[in-house]
Formats: sequence, C-alpha cells, structure tokens
Amino acid sequence: MRRRRALFFALLCSFLFSLFPSGAETAKNNVSAPKDILAPKTVTSTTTVAEPLSPSDTSAGHQAGLVEEVLVALILILLAAKVGGDIFERFGQPAVLGELIFGMIIGNSALLPLGSVGTVLSNIVHDPAVDSFVTLLAEIGVVLLLFEVGLESTVYEMMSVGPSAFLVACLGVVAPVALGFVVGEIFLPEEPWTVHLFLGAVLAATSVGITARVLSDLGKMHLRESKIILGAAVIDDVLGLITLAAVQGIITAAGSGEGVSIVAIGWIVVKAFLFFVGAIILGLFVSKRFYKFASYLRGKGILLTVTLIWCFGLAYIASRMGLAPIVGAFAAGLVLEEATFIDWEGREEQLEKLLRPVCDFLVPVFFVHMGMKVHLEVFGKLDVLWLATALTLAAILGKQICSLGVLEKGVGRLVVGLGMIPRGEVGLIVASIGAGMRTPEGHPVINVQTFSATVIMVVITTMMTPPLLQWGLRRLERKTGMAPRPE
Amino acid sequence: MRRRRALFFALLCSFLFSLFPSGAETAKNNVSAPKDILAPKTVTSTTTVAEPLSPSDTSAGHQAGLVEEVLVALILILLAAKVGGDIFERFGQPAVLGELIFGMIIGNSALLPLGSVGTVLSNIVHDPAVDSFVTLLAEIGVVLLLFEVGLESTVYEMMSVGPSAFLVACLGVVAPVALGFVVGEIFLPEEPWTVHLFLGAVLAATSVGITARVLSDLGKMHLRESKIILGAAVIDDVLGLITLAAVQGIITAAGSGEGVSIVAIGWIVVKAFLFFVGAIILGLFVSKRFYKFASYLRGKGILLTVTLIWCFGLAYIASRMGLAPIVGAFAAGLVLEEATFIDWEGREEQLEKLLRPVCDFLVPVFFVHMGMKVHLEVFGKLDVLWLATALTLAAILGKQICSLGVLEKGVGRLVVGLGMIPRGEVGLIVASIGAGMRTPEGHPVINVQTFSATVIMVVITTMMTPPLLQWGLRRLERKTGMAPRPE
Repeated sequence: MRRRRALFFALLCSFLFSLFPSGAETAKNNVSAPKDILAPKTVTSTTTVAEPLSPSDTSAGHQAGLVEEVLVALILILLAAKVGGDIFERFGQPAVLGELIFGMIIGNSALLPLGSVGTVLSNIVHDPAVDSFVTLLAEIGVVLLLFEVGLESTVYEMMSVGPSAFLVACLGVVAPVALGFVVGEIFLPEEPWTVHLFLGAVLAATSVGITARVLSDLGKMHLRESKIILGAAVIDDVLGLITLAAVQGIITAAGSGEGVSIVAIGWIVVKAFLFFVGAIILGLFVSKRFYKFASYLRGKGILLTVTLIWCFGLAYIASRMGLAPIVGAFAAGLVLEEATFIDWEGREEQLEKLLRPVCDFLVPVFFVHMGMKVHLEVFGKLDVLWLATALTLAAILGKQICSLGVLEKGVGRLVVGLGMIPRGEVGLIVASIGAGMRTPEGHPVINVQTFSATVIMVVITTMMTPPLLQWGLRRLERKTGMAPRPE
Repeated sequence: MRRRRALFFALLCSFLFSLFPSGAETAKNNVSAPKDILAPKTVTSTTTVAEPLSPSDTSAGHQAGLVEEVLVALILILLAAKVGGDIFERFGQPAVLGELIFGMIIGNSALLPLGSVGTVLSNIVHDPAVDSFVTLLAEIGVVLLLFEVGLESTVYEMMSVGPSAFLVACLGVVAPVALGFVVGEIFLPEEPWTVHLFLGAVLAATSVGITARVLSDLGKMHLRESKIILGAAVIDDVLGLITLAAVQGIITAAGSGEGVSIVAIGWIVVKAFLFFVGAIILGLFVSKRFYKFASYLRGKGILLTVTLIWCFGLAYIASRMGLAPIVGAFAAGLVLEEATFIDWEGREEQLEKLLRPVCDFLVPVFFVHMGMKVHLEVFGKLDVLWLATALTLAAILGKQICSLGVLEKGVGRLVVGLGMIPRGEVGLIVASIGAGMRTPEGHPVINVQTFSATVIMVVITTMMTPPLLQWGLRRLERKTGMAPRPE
C-alpha cells in the first residue's frame, strides 16, 4: 500500500516537473512591458491573414498560442467570479460586488505585490487579442443578462409602471446633465461650454446591469420599485443616447461654425421611439409565429438556439439603429410570454432552465471584465480625485432628484433613486467617444484627467449601489411591515 | 378592429422602413473586396490599443461596430446549424453534416448567386476580427464537446479497451504516413522526400469530433466499437502530434545539414506519455478534493463554473505541453466519475443537464465554422483534384488497415475503421504549419496546390464519415441481431 502511494507521488511529481519548463517559458516571454508586446502581436495576426495562401486556415497555427491565453483568461475570470462572489456573500453582500473587486485585482495584478506572477497574469489579460475576445464574450453575457431580465416581465406589466418609469427616466437624464454641466463650469473653467455639456452627457445613462443583478440576487425582481427602476433604466438608456447624439451634433456644429441641425437630432429621437414601439408590436405579432415555425425544426437544443437567435436579432437591430444592443435584448425578453412556448412543453426543458447555465458561464465574464477595466493608478492624482468626487456627487444627486418622478403612493422613492445610481459601460463608452472628439480649439473634449475622473465616478457609483440598495430595500421592508409589497 | 389592425400595420411598416437606411449603409460599406477592408480594420483596432489614454476603455467605442458584426455572425451560424441540421435529419443523416454543409454555404456566400446579400454576408463572416472571435468560440465549443465525450466514459472502461485502442492508434498512424509518403513520391516527384514525409504527417491524426458527434447523435456511445474508436482517436492524436514534431525536426535538421536530434524527439514522446499518465493520476487523486473544496463555495451556478475551470485547466495544461487542448479536455472528462459529485446532489442540477445548453450553443459553432473554412474555388483545378483524390484514398485506406489492430473477437472492425476516417482541424493545422516551413531549396513544404488538396481531403473524409458510419452500424446490428451488443 505504502509502496503504491510512493509510486503515485513519484509519478505526480514527475508530471508536475514536466510542466515546469513550459511554464517558465511563458514567464520569460511575457515579462517585458505589456505595450511592447501588444502591437507586434496584433500585427503578426494581421500579416497572417493577409497572406495569399488560404487566409483563415493558415492562421490556425498562430491561433494555438491564443487559444492557450484565452483558456487561462477564462479560468482566471471564472475563478475570480466564484471566489469573489463567495467571499462577498459571506459578508452579506451581493456576489456581483465580489466579481467586480476580484476583476480589479486581476486587471491590476501587475501593480500588486505578486512578483512575476502578477506581471504574467496582467500580460495575459491585457493582451489585445485576448481582451478583444473577452470583451465580446462579456458583451454577449450582458446581452443575455438583459434578455433574462426582460423575460421576467411582460409588456403589460411594463405598461402599468409606464408613466412613472417615463417621468423618472426624463428627470434622471435632465438632472444629471444639468449637474454635470455645473461641475464642468466650476472645475474646468478654462474649457469651453461644450465640454461641460459633454460631461453632463456622460452622467446621463444608468447602467441597469448592476441593479438588475442585485435585485435578482436578492430575489426582489417582483417588487413594483424594481419594475420602475428597470423600466426607467431602459428609457433612460434611450434618452441618454439621444442626449449623447445631440451633444455630439452641437459640438460638431460649433466646431464647423454652423448652427445645430434640429432635423438630425429629431431623426435620432424618432428612430429611438420607432424602435421601441416597433420592437414591441413586432415582438407581440411575430414572436408567436417565429416560435411556432421553429417548433417544426427537428434536432436537439432547438428551443435554446432559436431563443438566442431571437435575442441576438433584436440586439442587432437596436445596435444598427444606434442604440445599445442591451436595449434590444431587453425588448426581446419583454415580448416573450408563457403562451409563446406552448408547443415546446414536454419536448424540451423550460426556457429559463436552459438559459441559466449559459448565463452562469457568460454573465460573470461581463462583471469581472468591468472590474478589470479599472486602472488603479489614477486613484493617486489629487486634482483628478477632486473632479471625480464632484462628478460622483452630481451623479448620485442627479438620480435622487429623478425619484420625484414616481407617481404612485406607497412606492419606495428612496429605493428607486438608489437603484438608478450606477453608471457603467454606457458612461465609459460616452467618455471614450468624447476622448476621440475635438473642441474648436483642437483639444480633446474629454482629456486624460477628465477620463480618469469619469472612470472613478463609474467605479464608485457602481460599487456603492449594491450595499445601498440592499439597505434601502431593508428599510422599505421595515416600513411596509415584514412582508415586502407583492406585485 | 379593422382600424386597429391598419394602425398596427402602419407602425410595423414605419418600423421596418426606419431600419432600411442603416441596412443600406452596411451594404455600401462592405461591397468592396474583402481583403481591402480586412487590413485597415485590424490596423485601426491596433492603433486604438496603442493610444496613450487608457487602452482598454477607449477601444470600447470602436468595439460597438464589432459587437454588431459578431451578433450577425452568431445569428447566421446558429441559423445555419439548426436549418442545416433539420434538413439532414429529415433525410436520415446526422445533424452535424447539415451544419458542415450550411457552414460551407455561409463561408462561400460571395460565390453563390445571392447578389449583394452574399457579398455582405461573406464580408461579415470573413472579417478577421469576427473570424478570430468565432474561431476562439469554436475552439471552446470543441473543448467542451470532447469534455462531454470524456465524461461519458471512465478510466476503467478506457483501460479495458486499452490494448485494442493502442494497437489501432499505432497502425492508424503508421499506415497513413506510409501511404501519404507513397502518394507524394508519385504525384510530386519533383519535391524532396521531406515533403512526401510531411504529406504523410498530415494524414496521421483522426478528427474525433465528427465521429464522436455522429455516435452521440445516433445514441451509440455505449458500444464497445465506439469506445475503441474514441480511445484510439485520442492516442492517435497524441501519436499524430509526435509524428508532426518528429517530421518538423527532420526537415529542420535536413535544412541545416545536421543530423536529426533523437533526444528532442524522445523528449516530445516522453512529455506526451507523462501527460496522459499524469493527467489520469492527478485527475483521480485531485478531482474529488477539488470538487469537495468547491462545494464549500457559496453562490449560484458553482458546479458548472467549477467544472468549466477543471475542463479549461486540463485543456490548458495539454496545450502548454504541445498537445491539442481537446486531448486535455477529454482527459478532464474521463477522470470525473459519479462519486465526484456526491456533495452536489439536491443542491444543483445534474452536471450533464447543466453542460447541455452551453454545448448546444457552442458546439454547432465549431462545426459550422469548419464548414466556413472550406474554399469552394479550389474544387475547380484538375491537378489539385487528382492529388486530392489520391490523398483521400490514402487517408481512407490507411485507417481501414488500422482496424486490423482490434484484438477482441465479435467487435465490428469495419465500424472501427470507418470511425477513424475523418481528418479535421488537426490535419488543417498540420498542413498550415507545413505551409509556413521551407525546404532546403527554399520552397514552402506545403505549397498552395498541396494545401488545397489537403483541404479537399479533409472535407471529403469528414463528410463521408457520417453516412458511412451509419451504414456500418446498421450492418453491424443486422449481423449481431437486432439489439446492438450492450457494453
């Protein structure tokens, strides 16, 4: 028995030893500064593709190393998600906060005292080819999350919270834009007013992903407050993007010395409106026929695949219209009802059960990746920190004002206001668009300092929401008696 | 009622109309020749990444268009998979063949009489950024497929078919390499003998994906023949990669005028052996502890995530050792047994049920993508077709010889031989490595014509396997009585 164990251990050791040289090679190859590696690597893959001989096939050999890096990145992300989630759940916090914080740790592992391991990790996750893959996977993850969220409500429910959600959304765009403008006037007096206006646009859109996840983690999705928040966040997203387009138009017009084209701005507004009305009508009309037709298809896994096609299809249409893909995914889930799946009963599992594992895989990728995008270096600069503080306060205050738009009595306005706080990917995308635009004087509209401050604002508003929302929900429960108001 | 319908239709029309301008834009942008678009696009993303301001965040804006293209590519792939699968299932063929053929249609849509739609589709799926994403997603798909296949058998079962599988694998490498060499001598007399040897190496490795899928589609995974095929294909893969490494070593040595390093080739053989022994010992030892530890983690979707980490981890280790990631994924599945999941009963769904939807999403991506990689143009050249025919015959004959390695009586040798026929991604990867190597005279080892012939060989062997295997299995059933021999 003993001899057998010794043999096992000898074999195990020789196995681990055999891994070692390869591991050392990676370390050696990746220790140089990340940016030096990045450019040549991408160029290599471009060259491969441009080769005359059968483009996609020849790249297969070069892709082998990439597959390896992607596998490591996925292992790291999934580990971070589950270990982070576990630790935060033990402290009574939502798992999503752990995913964000552990994402920050992975993303900034080069700065942490991890020695060469940190550098290797950092190089792998910041390799542009790996990052591009993870970004797209994360994007699919958030699309599926919003689809799942949409699936949990129906059009009729949305209609019933409609007026409140619409008012909340409108106030939730006007107030932050105005406050952002004021922050710009005070903190960046040397910049033109167009820059201040752009700062307002950055603050406009709520990132519904975090709030939706927190509400779903806590099992509060059925609350009227949740419905208002989600409805408002979606309308908000549409309004935020309209604001962005309008501000972009104003800056371009100001730069060329022309007046602002009301027609162009009007067209964006009309498009957004048409999408929503269209998606809902199309959805209610078409979805039943689409699923009926799909039920004739033979084979395995049809229901899930058909649903993915439906979800990606509406996300694509939203994106083509200049809206965020998540808006389309939400609409796609919204129009599906129990009745749509009548032909599938007994043949396949329930749609929710089929979607769950796919979401369990891809949704944490989105949240860990969002944490990875945070650059801890910027937390060290004082002027950036002041601007960030002001922006964060404007962001929070702006969304508390919007809770005045709740029309119904007995609904927790505080919870609605708190749920609207997080600014996530949309804020970052708006800021990055600003970084690429020029003022009439030729400066970037959003410079490096402002961009860093925006990132901090996004991080703080995102991270403060889960505990605040949880506190708000507990307070609401105490106020309305132990049982939360059912739908 | 009638007025309401008219209103609905008016809104629907205005919605579809509002989509139209955007659609036309895409068409306009993408109509130019694909290669002209490809290079600048990738360069753009490289430039973005190299920008001083917060690399990963600024690329967010540019990524928006990419997300759209990826959504379209995924919709196309999933549609192709399900429509193709449905059509082929109606004709009594396995769904995977439909996925391949419809993949070919998408990949070559520019050649088909589809007008500008074909060009647009072709440009989207051949955009290098989209292709890179889909390739990686397909790679994850095939890793999960082999993991699922491994999960269905245990180490003890593998041991019982061990001797037969090992003999079949050895003959299945020696015979095709020898036949490939002969084909090279006859059809490429002007090339040096190293090229002929390389042609043999291309023919060595079986692509177990197709066979595994066909056996799984037909519910024949439990047959002893299936176990031998899968076991042999895995050993085969290892031996095929050893052959490749050896041939590479010989060509490099011949080029530099030195002798072949026996030590280097020996090291590759030892590494491969150590991996298998190591993975199985490590697996049986570690997997139970790993899952036990994971069962302490709080949160949702832990079992699936932990399993993905396990599967990707072994795939990564295999890849780091110079083996294909699928070899590691297969080993990862092989060592997991029912007993490993004892702590999870009641807490989460069965692992197989959790894996199914993820595989339903990602596995078809692999097969459709394999079809997409086929270039229909090469089917038009006569000398290429002759070489392709000879290679295909060598590939088929070589694997029929290997079925003589089956030691047990009463096992259908024909089925084993047929199951070993397909050459897939490994053959293509080997060929693409040869395309990047140079003979002592400075020519590429695998030139454009030989590469095209290899592609045709891969396509034909892949496509003929499902119907042949099905026929072989029916014949076996008739021979052994209506009920197939149970395990």
